Amino acid sequence: MTPFNDRFLKACRGEPVDRTPVWFMRQAGRYQAEYRALREQYDMMTLATTPELTAEVTLLPVRQMAVDAAILFSDIIMPLGPMGIDVELRAGVGPVVDRPVRSPDDVDRVRPLEPEGDLDYVLKAIRMLREELSVPLIGFVGAPFTLSSYLVEGGPTKNYAKVKAFMYQEPDAWHELCGKLADGVARYLQAQVDAGAQAVQVFDSWVGALGPQDYDEFVRPHMKRLFDSLELDVPVIHFGVGSAALLERMQSAGGDVIGVDWHVYLDDARERLGPDTPVQGNLDPIAVLAPWELLRERALDVLRRAGPQPGHIFNLGHGLIPDTDPDQLSRLVDLVHEESPRFLRAEGVPS
Amino acid sequence: MTPFNDRFLKACRGEPVDRTPVWFMRQAGRYQAEYRALREQYDMMTLATTPELTAEVTLLPVRQMAVDAAILFSDIIMPLGPMGIDVELRAGVGPVVDRPVRSPDDVDRVRPLEPEGDLDYVLKAIRMLREELSVPLIGFVGAPFTLSSYLVEGGPTKNYAKVKAFMYQEPDAWHELCGKLADGVARYLQAQVDAGAQAVQVFDSWVGALGPQDYDEFVRPHMKRLFDSLELDVPVIHFGVGSAALLERMQSAGGDVIGVDWHVYLDDARERLGPDTPVQGNLDPIAVLAPWELLRERALDVLRRAGPQPGHIFNLGHGLIPDTDPDQLSRLVDLVHEESPRFLRAEGVPS
Repeated sequence: MTPFNDRFLKACRGEPVDRTPVWFMRQAGRYQAEYRALREQYDMMTLATTPELTAEVTLLPVRQMAVDAAILFSDIIMPLGPMGIDVELRAGVGPVVDRPVRSPDDVDRVRPLEPEGDLDYVLKAIRMLREELSVPLIGFVGAPFTLSSYLVEGGPTKNYAKVKAFMYQEPDAWHELCGKLADGVARYLQAQVDAGAQAVQVFDSWVGALGPQDYDEFVRPHMKRLFDSLELDVPVIHFGVGSAALLERMQSAGGDVIGVDWHVYLDDARERLGPDTPVQGNLDPIAVLAPWELLRERALDVLRRAGPQPGHIFNLGHGLIPDTDPDQLSRLVDLVHEESPRFLRAEGVPS
Repeated sequence: MTPFNDRFLKACRGEPVDRTPVWFMRQAGRYQAEYRALREQYDMMTLATTPELTAEVTLLPVRQMAVDAAILFSDIIMPLGPMGIDVELRAGVGPVVDRPVRSPDDVDRVRPLEPEGDLDYVLKAIRMLREELSVPLIGFVGAPFTLSSYLVEGGPTKNYAKVKAFMYQEPDAWHELCGKLADGVARYLQAQVDAGAQAVQVFDSWVGALGPQDYDEFVRPHMKRLFDSLELDVPVIHFGVGSAALLERMQSAGGDVIGVDWHVYLDDARERLGPDTPVQGNLDPIAVLAPWELLRERALDVLRRAGPQPGHIFNLGHGLIPDTDPDQLSRLVDLVHEESPRFLRAEGVPS
């Protein structure tokens, strides 16, 4: 049996590693021929709610590349359905909510989550995967703001006008909604860990839409309560996109590891977050489409900027896109493993 | 005749003003009943290419509110058509390009701009407006990266995958394209100023999609060449959205005034940019949908953070959205005029 690879978990805890661990957001997905073949038979929700299929898809990238972690094949919106929100994952669009939340009464419709029962298929998939995997399994969910952006907008949005207007116009209902979502998210994360997830990632994917004031007033209290309420003995990764200006605020809300996207250099991010906060990131997912020499140079720059101090997980700044070439990705994983040791030794790294 | 109000121009030059000048991006637009009425008769391109109509729309907000500047009613893509790109402004979508630029050969299709002739209707509208206005008239255009994002993607995009992939895969063609666009943009700005525009704004609206490396390698050289080539005796405003992490880089590329969006506090932005760079911004355009008390508080916070040093133009961090209430906006203009004097005096402003 393959020995368990705990490089990812060590990096999450800020412990020294032999090589920088690497995994990719959306590492199971449309860029894989095997995934596309499955999607011809099943829609996304079927894959995410049928434990055998969930496990099969989750394992695809782990079998194809030397990634140091598996992430459960799922979606950030999974708790919404069981919480009473009719949400559909529409192909090529994203989550679409049938009856958006636009009033205090709508917030009353949102009910507490009972993960055991409501999301049993997820927990079963996690248990199955733990039998198979020799790398850590990451569970995940969307953060309250990101989830509520779908709830209020009714689907993906460009300007977040409805969700922001709801925050401003109905602050009590907003806080009620986020409180309910934070509770559901916390329970769901706990259930994933109880079932065997060895780390969890909270995706506040769209938090970058907010200015610092909105974050402090309408989001941070709920994130803080969420992170404070978690009594997990596994690392928690806190991630957002376009959140360069919010990093310290996100850190102060909580999470053991901060996910950083490509808008900020990783050495700047580490300086802002301090030496005790591990970081995950931060290659632009579109850079994977570049010719190998440029991709290589960008990947090495990430490693160089991450520096010799422990606590870096190599990843992208957002999910992989369908145009990605699987071979290029596989080569990138190997590059990170081969080249990172020299960057992890303080001496001899040109600055 | 109304005396000319030069408060906006003074602030652009970093000179002291009696009150903070204020105008809004997209201050003529769908939120106005008068504009919607015109749009029932004419499409957007007709309004932007018929001097009498352009002038009429440009004047709408100036007549309805006490704004300190007018901005020509137009679109950032105006030079593209005359440069040989078939581009259509599709209602509810944005600019759509019939045959996107995807190869070096496609770049060859892009031809130089001859603003006098090609864009005569714009220049005529500017001359007409100068007869009417007693506030400065701002001309504008899109920046090369933002324009090329439409050219390469074929329309609005979420992940900028095609334009980034083109940069990475065809760097020579990319630089050729941006060089041509920078030339066209420079000529167009010069022609607008020659016709009477008293300030110009370069909209690099989508530059926030890029990390610092991409900006330095693929965008900054063209922006620098563009700004260096301008021999204008009017202020040049350099604006981007989601560009919090790029502010210093944008400043180093050029422009007299830096536009700042709502992702960064204005005192932080001013500290980063230094005391000699005037700033424009930076209220979240969605905050205008908030109840008056919250909007008032946010607007005063912008004034407080702008501080007593000269060189602040009050604006939004992006364009007004159609849901905006015109009365609320008008009240905001008055608030900025009434309350700014106390923030412009160093003494007695609580920090």
